[in-house]
Amino acid sequence: MIKVTIYNEYLHERASERVAKVYPHGIHEALKENLTDEDISVKTVTLDNVEDITDELLADTDVFMWWGHKAHEKVPDEIAVRVQQACLAGMGMIFLHSGHHSKPFKLLMGTPCNLSWREDGDREYLWVCDPSHPIVQGIGNYIKLEHEETYGEPFMIPEPDKLIFIGNYEGGEAFRSGCCYRRGYGKIFYFQPGHETFPTFYHPDVIRVLKNAIRWAVSDYRGVLECPHIKKIEE
Amino acid sequence: MIKVTIYNEYLHERASERVAKVYPHGIHEALKENLTDEDISVKTVTLDNVEDITDELLADTDVFMWWGHKAHEKVPDEIAVRVQQACLAGMGMIFLHSGHHSKPFKLLMGTPCNLSWREDGDREYLWVCDPSHPIVQGIGNYIKLEHEETYGEPFMIPEPDKLIFIGNYEGGEAFRSGCCYRRGYGKIFYFQPGHETFPTFYHPDVIRVLKNAIRWAVSDYRGVLECPHIKKIEE
Amino acid sequence: MIKVTIYNEYLHERASERVAKVYPHGIHEALKENLTDEDISVKTVTLDNVEDITDELLADTDVFMWWGHKAHEKVPDEIAVRVQQACLAGMGMIFLHSGHHSKPFKLLMGTPCNLSWREDGDREYLWVCDPSHPIVQGIGNYIKLEHEETYGEPFMIPEPDKLIFIGNYEGGEAFRSGCCYRRGYGKIFYFQPGHETFPTFYHPDVIRVLKNAIRWAVSDYRGVLECPHIKKIEE
Amino acid sequence: MIKVTIYNEYLHERASERVAKVYPHGIHEALKENLTDEDISVKTVTLDNVEDITDELLADTDVFMWWGHKAHEKVPDEIAVRVQQACLAGMGMIFLHSGHHSKPFKLLMGTPCNLSWREDGDREYLWVCDPSHPIVQGIGNYIKLEHEETYGEPFMIPEPDKLIFIGNYEGGEAFRSGCCYRRGYGKIFYFQPGHETFPTFYHPDVIRVLKNAIRWAVSDYRGVLECPHIKKIEE
Repeated sequence: MIKVTIYNEYLHERASERVAKVYPHGIHEALKENLTDEDISVKTVTLDNVEDITDELLADTDVFMWWGHKAHEKVPDEIAVRVQQACLAGMGMIFLHSGHHSKPFKLLMGTPCNLSWREDGDREYLWVCDPSHPIVQGIGNYIKLEHEETYGEPFMIPEPDKLIFIGNYEGGEAFRSGCCYRRGYGKIFYFQPGHETFPTFYHPDVIRVLKNAIRWAVSDYRGVLECPHIKKIEE
Repeated sequence: MIKVTIYNEYLHERASERVAKVYPHGIHEALKENLTDEDISVKTVTLDNVEDITDELLADTDVFMWWGHKAHEKVPDEIAVRVQQACLAGMGMIFLHSGHHSKPFKLLMGTPCNLSWREDGDREYLWVCDPSHPIVQGIGNYIKLEHEETYGEPFMIPEPDKLIFIGNYEGGEAFRSGCCYRRGYGKIFYFQPGHETFPTFYHPDVIRVLKNAIRWAVSDYRGVLECPHIKKIEE
Repeated sequence: MIKVTIYNEYLHERASERVAKVYPHGIHEALKENLTDEDISVKTVTLDNVEDITDELLADTDVFMWWGHKAHEKVPDEIAVRVQQACLAGMGMIFLHSGHHSKPFKLLMGTPCNLSWREDGDREYLWVCDPSHPIVQGIGNYIKLEHEETYGEPFMIPEPDKLIFIGNYEGGEAFRSGCCYRRGYGKIFYFQPGHETFPTFYHPDVIRVLKNAIRWAVSDYRGVLECPHIKKIEE
Repeated sequence: MIKVTIYNEYLHERASERVAKVYPHGIHEALKENLTDEDISVKTVTLDNVEDITDELLADTDVFMWWGHKAHEKVPDEIAVRVQQACLAGMGMIFLHSGHHSKPFKLLMGTPCNLSWREDGDREYLWVCDPSHPIVQGIGNYIKLEHEETYGEPFMIPEPDKLIFIGNYEGGEAFRSGCCYRRGYGKIFYFQPGHETFPTFYHPDVIRVLKNAIRWAVSDYRGVLECPHIKKIEE
C-alpha cells in the first residue's frame, strides 16, 4: 500500500462560492476520493492543521502531494524545510498547479519558479512528450481540458531531468506542464493543471496521471543524508 | 569571421510555383542574404553538388546549417557520416525544420527524430523558455509566425541539454521547437520553423535567432577524436 | 519473467588459454549462470550465430546485454540497426565493458564512444554516486575489483541522463563507469567493468548490479515509432 | 573588464601557522593576485566585512567566487539569499572546495551537498571529461595535485548539467570534481580542489581553470525575475 499525504491550503473553497461549487469539501477531499485505490491510501492536511506535518507523518508518507496558492507564506519555514528534507531523504513529491510557488518546491528547485499567468479559462491541450514514460500510461497523445488557468513561459525552474507534458492554451501560450526531477533520494513531479475554479481534479486523465505519478514517485529507498568523515580504505 | 556553410536540397523551389514565389533563388540564397553579416560569411551547397561537402569544406566551416525535406535519402551515407564526424570534432550544426529527418541529425541523435505533422498553415507562437540564453538575445517573450507547418509531440529525440523554445499552434498542438545539444566537441541547435511555403526565413526574429545560434555554435576548439592506448602515469 | 538475451562475441575465450581459464564456456555462459533468477531467464547468442538476432528474437527480449571487443566490425550493419531500433521501441539494453565500441551502442549514442585504455590489471574501486538508484540497491559505497582493464577519460559519450558509478584505478585514472540513458522508449545502461582476462562477472556485487540493471531496464511499454500525418483536432 | 568578487572567510589563515605559511595574506589575496589579468579585475570580501556583500556590490559583480569552511553558519541568511538571487538574475558563481557547504551553494542546488571526506593529503588527478569545454582550454588530459583533501561520493547534488572533471585520489576515492549548472539566468561552476593547507591556488593549471571559469560564467544578460500577470495576446 502506497501512503499518500495531500496538503491543500483549503482557503479558496471556503471563501468563494464559485470554488465551493466545484470542490464543496475542498480540493484535498476531491483528490482523496479520486486517488484512493487498491494500492493507494490517502491522508490529508490543510493550512488549519499544517503543524500536523511532523517528521513522524513524513516518515510514514511515501508520496506527498501539495496544492497551495494564496497562503504560501503562512506555511512556517521550518515545516517547509521539513518537507524538503523528507523529499531529499527519499519521499516522493507531487506539486500541483500553483504549488510552483510553494516554499518546499522553491527550496527543492533553488530557483524562484516564476512564470506568467492569465485567468481567462482557456481551453488547454496537454501533449505527451514521451508515450513510454510511466506517468503517461493509459493516456492518449494529449489531455484536453475545457478550461484552465493559463501559465506561460519563461518558467524559472532548473532544466527538468525529463519533460513529460507541454501545454497549449487557446490564447497562444505554451508551457512546460509536466516536469520530472530527482533531488537527493527523492523523485519530484510538477504538474501544471489544477486551478481551483475548474473541475480539473475530476478529469479521468488527470486522475490517471496523478495515480501514475504516485506509483512512479514512490521509492523503496529511504536514507539519512550525511557528510561522513571517512578513513582510508585498508588494502 | 565565422564561416557558415548552408546545405539546402533546393528541390521544392524548382518544382513548385508557390514555393518559388517565396524563395525565388532557393532557401539557401535567402538565408545567405539574410545571415551574412560583418562577422558571418556564408557558402552554400545544394543536392545538385552535394559531393562538394568534402572533408576540406567541413574543416573550413565553423557552423553548418541544414535544410532538407523530400530528398534526405539522396544524400549519400558517406557524406552524412562525414558531416556527423565534423560536428563531433567541433563544427557547430544548425538543423532547420524538416532537417529533423536528415541523415546527419538522426546519426547525431541516435533516435528516429519522428514527430507528428500537419500542413494547415497555422499561426504559431514560439515561446522563449530562458530569456538569458545567447540564442534568444534581442527577441521578446515570443516570436509570432503568421503561418507555419504544424509539428507535434511526441518528438522522438534525446532529452535536449537545454530547451530554448516551445511552439504553440492555433490548431492546438505544442512542440519542442528549439533544442540545444552538445555531442562530442560540437554544439547542435535544432529549430523547428522554416516550411518552404512560408516566408519564415525573412522574419527578422527568425534571422536574429539564427545569427545568435551561429555565434553560439561556433567553437575555438576543433579536435580529432581518438581512442588511445595510454601508459601508466610515472610517479 | 524478464526475458534477457546476451550477446557475446565469444572469440577471446577460444583463442586464449588465459581467458579460457577464467571463462571456460564463454562470458555469455558465465553471465547466464549467474544472472538467471526466479524472475530472470536468459538466452545467449554469439558471433557464430549472430544472424539469430532476428526481429522475432528482439520482440521476445525484454533486456538485451552486449559484450563484444575485437570483432565489432563482424556484426552486420543491418543487425546492429535492428538492435538499435528494438531498443528505441522499448527494449532495455545493457552494454558491458568493451561494448562501448559496439555498433549498436555507437548508433544509439551518436558519438564515437572513444576512451583511453591501459591493460595493467589495476585495482579498481567503483563508487556509487547515488545510493538511492535502483541499479545500486544492495551494494555498499563502492565495489572493489582486484584487477580490471583501465579505462580513462575523456569518454566521448553524450552527457548521461544519470551517472551511477565513477571508477578509480590504482594507476591514477578516473572514469564514468556506470551511465544511464533513455533513448526513444528504451532504457540503456553502460557498465565499464568486464575485461575478459579477469573474473569480474563472478563478483557478487557485479552480478547484483547487473540483475538490478535488468530489472531497471525492463519496460511494460513497447511501441512502434512513427511519424504520422495528423488532422486538425475537431473542436 | 570582467569584475570578480571573491569571498573568503579568512579564519584558518589567521588561526593556524601551517595555513598561514601557505597563504600568508589569506586565500583571497592569493587568488586575487593570481587571477587578476588584463580582462579580469578582482575585489575581495572576508567574513569580517561580510556585510559589504550588498545588492550594490552584487550588481557590480560579473562573477562571484566563494571559499568558506568552518564559518558557513556565520554568514547571515539574508546575505546568502542575496547572493543566490544575484546569481539567479545572471551573476556567475564559482564555488571552491569546502564551499560545497556554503549557504548560497546549498540554496542554489536545493540539496544538502553532502559528501565524504578525509584529510590525508592524497595525491589527486583531476581528469578532463570533455576537452572541448571552455573551462579546460589550455589544460592537458589531467591536472596533478601533489596533495589535496580527499572528497568522496556520494556527493548529494542535482545531476550536473555538464560534468567537467572527475578526481582520482591515491587512497582509492573518486569524485565529481568539476560541475557546471545553469540556474535562473546565472551560470555556476563547482570546483573541488582548494584545501587551505595545500598550495592548490598557486598551481598554474588550477589558476588557468579558474580564469577560464570566470570567462565562461560571465554573462551579458542580467535580468529581474518576475511572475507577471499577462493579458491575452490580441490577434
